[in-house]
Amino acid sequence: MLHEKENIKKYLLSAIRTVPDFPKQGIQFKDITTLLADKKALALTTQELSKPFLDSEADVIVGLESRGFLFGTNIAEVLNASFVPVRKPGKLPAETISENYELEYGTDSVEIHADSIKKGDKVIIHDDLIATGGTACAASKLVKRLGGTIIGYSFIMELGFLNGRKKLDHKKVESLLII
Amino acid sequence: MLHEKENIKKYLLSAIRTVPDFPKQGIQFKDITTLLADKKALALTTQELSKPFLDSEADVIVGLESRGFLFGTNIAEVLNASFVPVRKPGKLPAETISENYELEYGTDSVEIHADSIKKGDKVIIHDDLIATGGTACAASKLVKRLGGTIIGYSFIMELGFLNGRKKLDHKKVESLLII
Repeated sequence: MLHEKENIKKYLLSAIRTVPDFPKQGIQFKDITTLLADKKALALTTQELSKPFLDSEADVIVGLESRGFLFGTNIAEVLNASFVPVRKPGKLPAETISENYELEYGTDSVEIHADSIKKGDKVIIHDDLIATGGTACAASKLVKRLGGTIIGYSFIMELGFLNGRKKLDHKKVESLLII
Repeated sequence: MLHEKENIKKYLLSAIRTVPDFPKQGIQFKDITTLLADKKALALTTQELSKPFLDSEADVIVGLESRGFLFGTNIAEVLNASFVPVRKPGKLPAETISENYELEYGTDSVEIHADSIKKGDKVIIHDDLIATGGTACAASKLVKRLGGTIIGYSFIMELGFLNGRKKLDHKKVESLLII
């Protein structure tokens, strides 16, 4: 079983493309479009992302715009949960609350619909990648302000050297691939 | 069965929220976040979107940024197909081709990775909503330029009075809800 798991990880890693100097010079961009374009890798990714949470009784998967939309809804279906998007400012049509987070230079913010999470909802935060953890941390603050309980975080890839999981301060941070 | 189908449509329609004057005065925005927040509606939507294409042997679901990412990957898994995103300019990291389309005032454009579709691939174009059909039409041109064959279009909602399906000029345009 461990052997099989390692083989799946190797397969998924090989399906991800590294694009140099995107979006700017010096950044090695991890591109999951090549993973999505491989139907076997697509199905395996949903399966492996869902696995750590099969017994979690999660109510809601919160997916972060926009690559968190790709697998967020698939995980939601497997876990029999609902899906709530966290978006960039001005994209959600109804009443929202927002949180700022720091960038290398300046700040940015994310929003969630004010009526999207019910008090006591058990929530998993999902995105394709965790780097410094700023966006995921801001999303978790939004969920908590609405009365939700974070039961874990789910990422396809984690840039381990940036130690973003430290910012999340949670015992259940599940990354499929540590890079 | 027809009765059941009508009941499902009524249920899904009731799960969609109409937000007045978004993104600007006079527009009645159809908000699917309330549908996503209902786990039964979420699963039913994937099921009903996939149904017309179960025997299509589709190779690829092309989903349009960013609400087409939500169900595009779910349909892809049900149909055992892969997923390819069409995005706004500058978002895709590798080599792209692009197409312009007309807006009420001016033009906009969409991009696809140049290596994402193989010659002869059978492709379904998916988005949450078809209004005038401009974006879906531009996406279909991208797919055809890469040698793909459009076998159909899939939308959750269709604004029937705008007659966007006329622009697509295809016999298989499947909209779950005509509004």
